[in-house]
Amino acid sequence: MSKPVFHYFPIKALGEPSRLLLAYGGEDFEDKRVTFEDWPAYKPHTPFGQMPVLDLNGKQYAQSYAIARYLGRKYGLAGADIEEDFLIDQNVEFVNDIRLKAASVHYENDAELKKQADLSKNVYPTMLGRLDAMIKENNGHIACGKLTWGDFVFAGMYPYLKYMLQRPDLDSEYPSFKKLEETVYSLPKVKAFADSAPQCDF
Amino acid sequence: MSKPVFHYFPIKALGEPSRLLLAYGGEDFEDKRVTFEDWPAYKPHTPFGQMPVLDLNGKQYAQSYAIARYLGRKYGLAGADIEEDFLIDQNVEFVNDIRLKAASVHYENDAELKKQADLSKNVYPTMLGRLDAMIKENNGHIACGKLTWGDFVFAGMYPYLKYMLQRPDLDSEYPSFKKLEETVYSLPKVKAFADSAPQCDF
Repeated sequence: MSKPVFHYFPIKALGEPSRLLLAYGGEDFEDKRVTFEDWPAYKPHTPFGQMPVLDLNGKQYAQSYAIARYLGRKYGLAGADIEEDFLIDQNVEFVNDIRLKAASVHYENDAELKKQADLSKNVYPTMLGRLDAMIKENNGHIACGKLTWGDFVFAGMYPYLKYMLQRPDLDSEYPSFKKLEETVYSLPKVKAFADSAPQCDF
Repeated sequence: MSKPVFHYFPIKALGEPSRLLLAYGGEDFEDKRVTFEDWPAYKPHTPFGQMPVLDLNGKQYAQSYAIARYLGRKYGLAGADIEEDFLIDQNVEFVNDIRLKAASVHYENDAELKKQADLSKNVYPTMLGRLDAMIKENNGHIACGKLTWGDFVFAGMYPYLKYMLQRPDLDSEYPSFKKLEETVYSLPKVKAFADSAPQCDF
């Protein structure tokens, strides 16, 4: 069987959660970072014209959350039953809501800066406050009061979230966020992977 | 135990998939349709300031896809193993990508109409063609060549998708879409529910 290959852009963003999960699972995988320059030629060879894509055991896996959930279940990071799995899914979906909200503004043009200002005043504090409460209620985790693949989604995407929200001060404003990122990145296999991986800001 | 209550706006959109799943599961649930007028007063009482929300067995369930996946697993509409579950998740995530792409344009102002035109020429045909191929490859279903909760997500959201894409001609252009909607709505318990539910366009 050939070595697993994980294809994504040379950033963390939507790919890092699955990189961290593969590392946690002890997979000796090729961390293929496709440059934005090479992407147009690559794109037609992906299942949905999107990355990430994971080649594993002769199969292709696409869609970032679907891959993360699958790897989480494979490596023992899912819930104990469908009720716990639901809680992870629910809370991950909320984290994604925050990302989408930030992205919808980030990719806007200048004329939309007012919208950004409005979100900063009302929407973000409410959503981020809810996320902060969620992590505190869950013993420093995304769900179920324990380490799950949901934590990997958050930790991998956190720098991207800060970037998209244009909020470098998030670490100090919500220490629970930074702490959860550190919880995941300090897991021995994850740390070993991250220490040797190319550095990227988000 | 009190009767399950499903809270959503008086439209199909992101709520209909779970309504159909509850009907399929034989739940005698209250189909609570919260008007847009009443929503601001309702909002603070929801877990994330969003709907849908499902009250079931004394617990609150939020986030549309998490609820649909949970109900699907509960009612025997999941995959046979984590590989099949992955395929459902992956393909549902792609359906959601199409919705998000359409929504990002739908909620734009007039100045963005050019973007809509561009998407209609390139992005939509590619994505919708991929979705059409997916359904054909899967024996008229979203994944695994059989009825899964992914079909309920698609069927429940299809009218909303047509509306958001501003494409009432989708039925004739991709007959596989309409056929899958009919497959789900013709399941006896789903049909009984839909026949007595308030009519809404999307």
